[in-house]
Amino acid sequence: MKKKILNNKITEKNIINNYLSKLNFNKIGTFNFKNDGAYIKILKNKKIVITSDSISEKIDFFKFDNSKSIANKIITINLSDLSAMGANPLTYSLNLFLPEYIDYKWLRIFSNELYRLQKKYNFYLLGGDISKSKELSISATFFGNVKKNIVIKQKSFGINKDIWVTGNIGDSYIGLNLIKNKIKLNDKRLKKYFTNKYYFPEHSSFGPKISKFIDSMKDISDGLIGDLNNMLAKNGAIIDIKQIPISKNLKKIINNKKINFNNILNGGDDYELIIISNRKFRDKIINIAKINKTKITLIGKTIKKAGIFFDSNGDLNIPREYDHFS
Amino acid sequence: MKKKILNNKITEKNIINNYLSKLNFNKIGTFNFKNDGAYIKILKNKKIVITSDSISEKIDFFKFDNSKSIANKIITINLSDLSAMGANPLTYSLNLFLPEYIDYKWLRIFSNELYRLQKKYNFYLLGGDISKSKELSISATFFGNVKKNIVIKQKSFGINKDIWVTGNIGDSYIGLNLIKNKIKLNDKRLKKYFTNKYYFPEHSSFGPKISKFIDSMKDISDGLIGDLNNMLAKNGAIIDIKQIPISKNLKKIINNKKINFNNILNGGDDYELIIISNRKFRDKIINIAKINKTKITLIGKTIKKAGIFFDSNGDLNIPREYDHFS
Repeated sequence: MKKKILNNKITEKNIINNYLSKLNFNKIGTFNFKNDGAYIKILKNKKIVITSDSISEKIDFFKFDNSKSIANKIITINLSDLSAMGANPLTYSLNLFLPEYIDYKWLRIFSNELYRLQKKYNFYLLGGDISKSKELSISATFFGNVKKNIVIKQKSFGINKDIWVTGNIGDSYIGLNLIKNKIKLNDKRLKKYFTNKYYFPEHSSFGPKISKFIDSMKDISDGLIGDLNNMLAKNGAIIDIKQIPISKNLKKIINNKKINFNNILNGGDDYELIIISNRKFRDKIINIAKINKTKITLIGKTIKKAGIFFDSNGDLNIPREYDHFS
Repeated sequence: MKKKILNNKITEKNIINNYLSKLNFNKIGTFNFKNDGAYIKILKNKKIVITSDSISEKIDFFKFDNSKSIANKIITINLSDLSAMGANPLTYSLNLFLPEYIDYKWLRIFSNELYRLQKKYNFYLLGGDISKSKELSISATFFGNVKKNIVIKQKSFGINKDIWVTGNIGDSYIGLNLIKNKIKLNDKRLKKYFTNKYYFPEHSSFGPKISKFIDSMKDISDGLIGDLNNMLAKNGAIIDIKQIPISKNLKKIINNKKINFNNILNGGDDYELIIISNRKFRDKIINIAKINKTKITLIGKTIKKAGIFFDSNGDLNIPREYDHFS
């Protein structure tokens, strides 16, 4: 990390010493952030999974969002990518582009949230750098471990495969639209529920647990349909619209409000996983989900014809007992 | 990499397919940029050196600088950090924050320069992401290999050690001040020489070649004195001011112009290396430099007293034959 003066009071050295130094978890390869670089040591002949994702003011968050939310987002989007590759996080490097309005309080809350998430998911900060900028932007590069060298591809599967989704879809989309005042809700508890899903998304860490039994996997960062579409190359999918998993709270408001279900399918940062797998592993997948207390729903199958098709007649022959068990 | 629309014409997918796809050098772990992540496989029990550095509009370059220069800078600052850790580049991930004025021409020139440097120094693009932004910012995370697991620390050395510097100091500082019109030069050839040193810096790749014989090393990104000062913890250094290596062109103008030598020592992005080593390796270091056609100059020694002191009496007993041989 380098010394650059951000403003008269806040220097990079200051930020590192007061806020970021606790984040290295005393790992030797970080040199306590006193080098311009760092190292990780790979003990076995292993694959290291690497993903890199950024967030920017006005694009991925609002200008004066709480820095706890911003910290949560830069971590979640990257952990979500790792999970989709079947990887558990090991370490990460962080590039901060900080505008002048960033103050000590912002940095304290930001670094405390990073610390909390690092402790929760067991990874440490390796290094990074800090630059001055007009707008707040953050990029992070994450390093993950995979079991038995299995790295999941997003686009590698045949037809007649099961399509699953973890958790629930659409809560974050509602949260964003509540913040934008495009949807109105009088129930304060409900409102808080949805906005929290937007401000503090939680990724599905189910990826590494299931990687042995699946063909393909992707996290949902551009909406269920958008990301499923990204996975499908020449082939297509048929989806049972009734099976799309949504939360009890979303069910509550979906009938009262004019919410287009299509928008829920296409909108938002759910950070859940789309999983494509062979039918023969259904029981196995259900079982691993149960053990890990993960909600998982069979929503459709891959087909030869290109495109995504919706079906609501139950023709997909999805066994009902697999639907929801959380 | 994710799909986000930059403007009506330029999408992330478009940028990846048309400009960045050639940069993966067909390496399997990159999934042709079709996954959200990538992997590298570490074959032996090796340390992977990682460094991450960013550049921003108005801070590290001017708003409408040629994208060839901008590409050169994001690569050079990172390769320079790797070299200072004794590492050769393996691969990198790239995060682009692009404002709306970025067009196809910009992207073509930018990606061609990345390609040229990747070929020259033998590394490939692993992945990254592209975001929309008001200002142009770029961050990159680089991965390097070290020989025999030697990773160089920047702050680990005793007293009475030799202090060396590679190449020449100050040309980039002059270039920057010519661009800013703080220095004026009539000689067009000379002017171009210096501004090129600012626009197209070249890092010293000498680091990995010498790592076995040195105690400490750092690249010069904040000026010779600033970076030397960063290396010194409790101890100090005495520098023979006459030995500071400068180019013939800088010598030419230094007498005619009112250029404070102090500014040359404190200014600029030279991307040369400060090397601290034991006296017993002098001949070895000289020899390796000769083999690698690298200019290296002994400029001083570490001392017990904190601070950086200048000496111009030759009391440092620096053997003249070691001074310049390039």
